[in-house]
Amino acid sequence: MRVGVFGASGYAGLELLRLLLRHPQLEISVVTSEQRAGQPVGEAFPALRGRLDLAFDAAEPEKLAPRMDLAFTALPHAASAPTVATLRRAGVAVADISADFRLRDLPTYEAWYGAHAEPSLVGKAVYGLPELYREELRGAELVACPGCYPTGALLPLVPFLRAGVVETQGIVVDSKSGVSGAGRKVDADFLFAELDENARAYKVASHRHGPAIEHEASVAAGGAVKVTFVPHLLPTVRGIVSSVYCRPTRALSTGEALALLRETYADEAFVRVLPEGETPSLAAVRGSNFCDVAAVADERNGTLVLLSSLDNLVKGAAGQAIQCANLMSGFPEQTGLLDTAFLP
Amino acid sequence: MRVGVFGASGYAGLELLRLLLRHPQLEISVVTSEQRAGQPVGEAFPALRGRLDLAFDAAEPEKLAPRMDLAFTALPHAASAPTVATLRRAGVAVADISADFRLRDLPTYEAWYGAHAEPSLVGKAVYGLPELYREELRGAELVACPGCYPTGALLPLVPFLRAGVVETQGIVVDSKSGVSGAGRKVDADFLFAELDENARAYKVASHRHGPAIEHEASVAAGGAVKVTFVPHLLPTVRGIVSSVYCRPTRALSTGEALALLRETYADEAFVRVLPEGETPSLAAVRGSNFCDVAAVADERNGTLVLLSSLDNLVKGAAGQAIQCANLMSGFPEQTGLLDTAFLP
Amino acid sequence: MRVGVFGASGYAGLELLRLLLRHPQLEISVVTSEQRAGQPVGEAFPALRGRLDLAFDAAEPEKLAPRMDLAFTALPHAASAPTVATLRRAGVAVADISADFRLRDLPTYEAWYGAHAEPSLVGKAVYGLPELYREELRGAELVACPGCYPTGALLPLVPFLRAGVVETQGIVVDSKSGVSGAGRKVDADFLFAELDENARAYKVASHRHGPAIEHEASVAAGGAVKVTFVPHLLPTVRGIVSSVYCRPTRALSTGEALALLRETYADEAFVRVLPEGETPSLAAVRGSNFCDVAAVADERNGTLVLLSSLDNLVKGAAGQAIQCANLMSGFPEQTGLLDTAFLP
Amino acid sequence: MRVGVFGASGYAGLELLRLLLRHPQLEISVVTSEQRAGQPVGEAFPALRGRLDLAFDAAEPEKLAPRMDLAFTALPHAASAPTVATLRRAGVAVADISADFRLRDLPTYEAWYGAHAEPSLVGKAVYGLPELYREELRGAELVACPGCYPTGALLPLVPFLRAGVVETQGIVVDSKSGVSGAGRKVDADFLFAELDENARAYKVASHRHGPAIEHEASVAAGGAVKVTFVPHLLPTVRGIVSSVYCRPTRALSTGEALALLRETYADEAFVRVLPEGETPSLAAVRGSNFCDVAAVADERNGTLVLLSSLDNLVKGAAGQAIQCANLMSGFPEQTGLLDTAFLP
Repeated sequence: MRVGVFGASGYAGLELLRLLLRHPQLEISVVTSEQRAGQPVGEAFPALRGRLDLAFDAAEPEKLAPRMDLAFTALPHAASAPTVATLRRAGVAVADISADFRLRDLPTYEAWYGAHAEPSLVGKAVYGLPELYREELRGAELVACPGCYPTGALLPLVPFLRAGVVETQGIVVDSKSGVSGAGRKVDADFLFAELDENARAYKVASHRHGPAIEHEASVAAGGAVKVTFVPHLLPTVRGIVSSVYCRPTRALSTGEALALLRETYADEAFVRVLPEGETPSLAAVRGSNFCDVAAVADERNGTLVLLSSLDNLVKGAAGQAIQCANLMSGFPEQTGLLDTAFLP
Repeated sequence: MRVGVFGASGYAGLELLRLLLRHPQLEISVVTSEQRAGQPVGEAFPALRGRLDLAFDAAEPEKLAPRMDLAFTALPHAASAPTVATLRRAGVAVADISADFRLRDLPTYEAWYGAHAEPSLVGKAVYGLPELYREELRGAELVACPGCYPTGALLPLVPFLRAGVVETQGIVVDSKSGVSGAGRKVDADFLFAELDENARAYKVASHRHGPAIEHEASVAAGGAVKVTFVPHLLPTVRGIVSSVYCRPTRALSTGEALALLRETYADEAFVRVLPEGETPSLAAVRGSNFCDVAAVADERNGTLVLLSSLDNLVKGAAGQAIQCANLMSGFPEQTGLLDTAFLP
Repeated sequence: MRVGVFGASGYAGLELLRLLLRHPQLEISVVTSEQRAGQPVGEAFPALRGRLDLAFDAAEPEKLAPRMDLAFTALPHAASAPTVATLRRAGVAVADISADFRLRDLPTYEAWYGAHAEPSLVGKAVYGLPELYREELRGAELVACPGCYPTGALLPLVPFLRAGVVETQGIVVDSKSGVSGAGRKVDADFLFAELDENARAYKVASHRHGPAIEHEASVAAGGAVKVTFVPHLLPTVRGIVSSVYCRPTRALSTGEALALLRETYADEAFVRVLPEGETPSLAAVRGSNFCDVAAVADERNGTLVLLSSLDNLVKGAAGQAIQCANLMSGFPEQTGLLDTAFLP
Repeated sequence: MRVGVFGASGYAGLELLRLLLRHPQLEISVVTSEQRAGQPVGEAFPALRGRLDLAFDAAEPEKLAPRMDLAFTALPHAASAPTVATLRRAGVAVADISADFRLRDLPTYEAWYGAHAEPSLVGKAVYGLPELYREELRGAELVACPGCYPTGALLPLVPFLRAGVVETQGIVVDSKSGVSGAGRKVDADFLFAELDENARAYKVASHRHGPAIEHEASVAAGGAVKVTFVPHLLPTVRGIVSSVYCRPTRALSTGEALALLRETYADEAFVRVLPEGETPSLAAVRGSNFCDVAAVADERNGTLVLLSSLDNLVKGAAGQAIQCANLMSGFPEQTGLLDTAFLP
């Protein structure tokens, strides 16, 4: 099956190439990059020299559509929507990694991102979190892959919301992310000399991933959920660790909380519930499609602490998109994705 | 004035040397290290070559007491108490950086640390956070300097507890610390290859700094406060950023929260309240004695987010100890401590 | 084919596991670790949870031999030799990653490492650098895999020594290595707080990899070669970049030097000769089995600069050992090893 | 004495502010930044909040000259020359940190940098390396501070060239630098995600600091010296370690080499000659004005290895400029500069 990668020279795009080059069923037929159109991939990125014998195309979806059966669109938000729409019209299945179709509600989208270029497609995409929407993803033709933060927030939290055992207000998601989450943003704030040995919170309670977390949390709870989302920037390239703080509505021990997680994710290939006493780390998931989750109940203080870690470029972006593409295409969900974290 | 540094070869001890070498009133007369006794300082630590012409002594407080007027004790907990007691009996003023005298209540100490070697001194030390206990610190002869985490948690939180505008239960302190906070612990967990590009929560709701935070928070609130303390390890050498989550008991905007912080710290030399929209970063305080604080109210979700950053070896340890020593000795509090963060 | 990994809990051992788990022909049947004997792999190393359903055995080669067809021995030097000898007597083929059989000459070994536990095997192993000893490696039963430094020094240098176009005295190899090259050494020098933002030369002209470089260089030159080897420690986990300085014996341009490299390595899967103007970087090879090489002639100053980069745990250890094992076992040399560097 | 800092928002400029704020004799009266003109320093750089109560001016040297007695010009090359010329005409002494006046020979300058805006001043500046040009610097009014690389290459090498004990051809300088040496260059190559865990050589034998090293080396040798200069980029913010390789013209042991270094630098405050067996590290000099030097003779291979470390922003830029300014102004050379490295 031929796949195209739009925006292949960004970090999520490059990670798609790394993972797709191992996939036994998906063959990369097209890679696009506006800045590098015409340049051989291995020349632009020495890491890919000898690995992929293609040159970048400009992102002309109409012209390129016949060369692919499925497309991954890893373009900036707003740039993605028209490309996706064109590809869909040409009959190409699309797993979109941009923000353009994640929010199912147009006014919410517009409040956070401005006007939408393809409003008629809003709400038509399946949310690409297979652990929550597996059945809808099978055979789907348009998938909106979650941002890196929502995946790490939702996987540990959703089981408790579904079970109705935590308050739906006052939830806090404190996430710490490596810098590749921002993409290859050529901005002074992302220079090595500014970030090494540095860390800080940013966009406190005002980050665009907040509404997506709230939306999916509300779906899980069957009613409005309120979340204060506080992202932090870490001096790492990859990875997100999240701590979710919420309040149980009834007595809930660490053991019970872990049991609920274990029961929920018993059959999941990519969610590992840690034993009591262990905490998720970036090192255990780096380069892999795993999301590790854990729970600690501080009953003394009426607080449940839920923890997760994932690689923002894999389970948070490219790996999850391939997991979705496997479901869209009828391949076993794990195809090409089972791999060991990069340690040390 | 002659000062001795006990445990001078640990990270807090070395930082004391760096800072004391700039201090116009305090002269280092004695440095101790068990492992390096007899070795010239500059030979053991090439960074200090040509800076300090002393050799390490073994930590024999009785013998060394006559050579100093004031001592900084940066020894492991339990090891510190007998040294402090001996120094005090010899009339030496002591700023203790260990955990031994931070908790004023013997049963709480014993619950977290085990038996205390000098129980009669428990409760006799002034808590060495000058912004809270300035008057008590003037002329004090025994000071228990706070751990690195409590300083970053308490400075932004205390004004709100004192003002009675936040709930005293359900408070969460999510802190992220560089690894020097653990001291020069020769343990596989602290190897470069284990920590670089890594991050994780640890000792969730079970770290020993938790009870100290709760104790001082309760003093500020005038009643029992409950805190869930969740520390994280960052791949940085220095620095702590903390996010404190609490619930206002009445409508409280970001502007009002910042105003309260500004009013509280208007005359403080080492607490900087950031303007609205800025967040504390490690880079802005690294190597300096500043603690930067900020606040964001997420009124939508009934949550107040308080943020801080500090250098755990300076405002979190050595710098704060010198600030205390200045007060103990009658020097202007800022003496030798005003310096610019190390940027980039 | 069943393979055992001795010393599987060290960094090279863990990397063997990561790579072997992808190998279509080699199945991990035994993993040993003295410290972790009896412990399930996924419990000891959370990164491997759900990936390898084995427990560590103690390293008892006689008992374990029947459970494997081929063994990778990633043990400390001196500990490896007796294990290798026992395995060989039991008919198990061995790819040894220790230093024990790299030097073919007993007196040289003893001068650098002390007494050898199995002197009768010295000189019997094939040197496991496939680009130099491919034919000897096919079907070999005992292979001594090179250290990480020699691979990076020899691949760019050997073609020039073979061609007789550089002086054989006064060669300098200036290498810069990430810290995983030292193994999981629990030593204060390898703590994060000591190494981050740090770098230094060490063991200048006295590192144990020096004689191995000289030996293989001399074989290539057909006469004694002298090399000054100066390793440096970098604040990275993985990777080695090397600069080799030598003096051409005749006019030699950058273009001619690159042409010689290209000609030598035209058919090699894992050596990439960079185009003029590019320099090898760690990022381009991290996690992969590639060694990138380049050359710059400074004709003004009679100096030829040869450059290389590799991942010390892959092409410098585990990947190269698997490449050898493929040759030993009659599999295509690249089996299980073609992968893209981990970028970013 | 009032000093102005032109280009105060670059990394060298910020480091000048950090160091000048401690200087007892020099008072910062003017700071310029094109991009931030009008902005208060503490608002633009939170690290400086509460430390320096000035706003950035646009760089208008004619207008600003009356407000300063001495200027540090930390501007990009080519931009510096006209500013320097204007300041000099207004009678302001200048310590220039740009490249504009380092090369004393106009054709060499033009070959490497292009046309010079103030050719009449070329050759008029004293080279600001106090260990080589102390007498010329006393009372000088125009000083061209060396680049960061030449300082680290020249301090260990010059004594051997002066003594005539090493060959003047075939010298190699292999330097490894943190990224702040490139300034705050907003370029994709300097992003955290591109550099962390990365390292590479760049501009091999073609870096602009090469001719400056050769020029000063030739002055020391009293004849033409040839140097192959190979810089590398390290994943650190600050610091340069250099290895200089040369060939003794007569038998020369490590002990003799160290003795020559010790004799040369016996009275220097900022050059520390390490004892035999130690190697210079970034950690030992970070944040300080020290340059550590060492030597190892590999007599077996006719090669002398000279090593150095320094902080590129201090001894490699701002600290050295202040050391020069002290000499220019008649203050003791060490004024405001003795400080301990930032450890850990």
